[in-house]
Amino acid sequence: MMTEFELIARLTRSLPTNTSTVVGAGDDCALIDLGLADRLVLFKTDAITEGIHFTKTAPPEKIGRKALARSLSDVAAMAGTPTHALVTLALPDNFDSGFVERIYAGLRALADQQGIAIVGGETTRNPERMLLSVSVLGTVEKGKSPLRSGSTPGDAIFVTGELGGSLSGKHLDFEPRLAEARWLASHFSIHAMIDISDGLAGDLRHILKASQVGAELLSDAIPISRAAGSAARGASSARPPLLAALTDGEDYELLFAVAAREAAPLLDAWRKQFPELRLSCIGRITAEPGLTIRDKKGVQPLSAHGYVHFQKP
Amino acid sequence: MMTEFELIARLTRSLPTNTSTVVGAGDDCALIDLGLADRLVLFKTDAITEGIHFTKTAPPEKIGRKALARSLSDVAAMAGTPTHALVTLALPDNFDSGFVERIYAGLRALADQQGIAIVGGETTRNPERMLLSVSVLGTVEKGKSPLRSGSTPGDAIFVTGELGGSLSGKHLDFEPRLAEARWLASHFSIHAMIDISDGLAGDLRHILKASQVGAELLSDAIPISRAAGSAARGASSARPPLLAALTDGEDYELLFAVAAREAAPLLDAWRKQFPELRLSCIGRITAEPGLTIRDKKGVQPLSAHGYVHFQKP
Repeated sequence: MMTEFELIARLTRSLPTNTSTVVGAGDDCALIDLGLADRLVLFKTDAITEGIHFTKTAPPEKIGRKALARSLSDVAAMAGTPTHALVTLALPDNFDSGFVERIYAGLRALADQQGIAIVGGETTRNPERMLLSVSVLGTVEKGKSPLRSGSTPGDAIFVTGELGGSLSGKHLDFEPRLAEARWLASHFSIHAMIDISDGLAGDLRHILKASQVGAELLSDAIPISRAAGSAARGASSARPPLLAALTDGEDYELLFAVAAREAAPLLDAWRKQFPELRLSCIGRITAEPGLTIRDKKGVQPLSAHGYVHFQKP
Repeated sequence: MMTEFELIARLTRSLPTNTSTVVGAGDDCALIDLGLADRLVLFKTDAITEGIHFTKTAPPEKIGRKALARSLSDVAAMAGTPTHALVTLALPDNFDSGFVERIYAGLRALADQQGIAIVGGETTRNPERMLLSVSVLGTVEKGKSPLRSGSTPGDAIFVTGELGGSLSGKHLDFEPRLAEARWLASHFSIHAMIDISDGLAGDLRHILKASQVGAELLSDAIPISRAAGSAARGASSARPPLLAALTDGEDYELLFAVAAREAAPLLDAWRKQFPELRLSCIGRITAEPGLTIRDKKGVQPLSAHGYVHFQKP
């Protein structure tokens, strides 16, 4: 059977386009030129399904918040400002209307906080489980959206926050890095940026593929979340924290590449601007294709299925 | 239990808004002022679910086409031009990738025909059944979008095409009335317009409520489709054709109100411009609230559950 990625690749090959489309499928958001003097329009949609992206027992406000926040994280990756959202609720038979109202309360609170208008809400049926689909419009200054395709050999690779173990809670509570991304794009020449939803290694591969480059990560520099550490201590079957940080999904942090000469000034300026959010330089872009990781034992490839040499002692 | 309409009403009460929102939830599309000199942006999303809006045995190309065409019908009701679309496919376990590719072929063909760019495609899981959600962006000349709220007493009520029996085939094959709606809005003062998705009576009620008016329909003037007639002849349990035309869903025709003095010139001009698409004047807007229908026996109320006096002979 085809994987999701293979299917998407087939479906999005040669999609219909038009002259106002600056970037279509394949980046964090579509970029559209509707004729505004200095801004482009961002367009993105995302869906979450009960039992897959959230459980029935999750606080409904957080379910609603997550449905919107995921798309906002994609707008952040384009250094944009979200402005409008549409919400589709696919409701199971015998849904609880109080639960649905609390989902909406969570959506509303995040929209309010970000100045986003919710300009349509509709419901449809999906008998077995709830599904929420949120579409977002936004704008971005022309020429300021870092695409996945712009990284070049020698670039320093950065990541915000700490990675791994998101499913123990952060996936319902994360902050889309909107202000941080806009600040980065307006002060530095960000060559490529993506939000981490499929895991650091997976999303870095999206940048590498789009930019036709490779990367070498530094094992010691990967920021490992406390949640990834606790998971490893809690169960002998759990994966080592570094592997969790490299491959767990749903971190919703920014991963970006910047010219090496800007790496040090960027770190300094960041610490003044965002003293409470960790920023880590985790490696560099290479001309040779492929993704490798360097640790005390040397450099080894990081396979699609994780870091093959990891063993719990 | 709350009905869908009651729930939507509660959820969409006091949604977050902002200064660029001209029309939010409650019309066929949202209308947004992003700062273009002479145009507003239209934003709409719609979803269809397997087993509810289409069956597993429907030709997949038609399923894809319908998923996009429904939103285009809403863009038509705002007299707009659709420009960009995003597609979310929620796929059941063990989906057939060939079937999914044929769904996309149907989507693509309609997008191509209308000059719409598909600028993103993503998939998610929905284990028991397929669900497609499509979001559409478009634009419309400022001041040219007929809202639901603009009809006034005395207006003539018109409907395009023929109504009823859509589920026997048309619901998978309908033509969004985009060119017709733009022509109407640019040549006449259309006071209110909506596309018929919930049935003539139901959607007319949306206009009446938004405009705080009533309406009287003429029984003899309602254009009844051949499909509604055949259904009535085919089964003794079937509803009379007029009732089907009044209350069946998924007609996707335009329903609009125009000043009475424009009614005759509009009909004349329409017949020259669109000789193959029927246009019917079916009644008038009244100052008294409520929806009534006039037939040989006189005027009687049309209830929310249909035309209560109907009986098969």
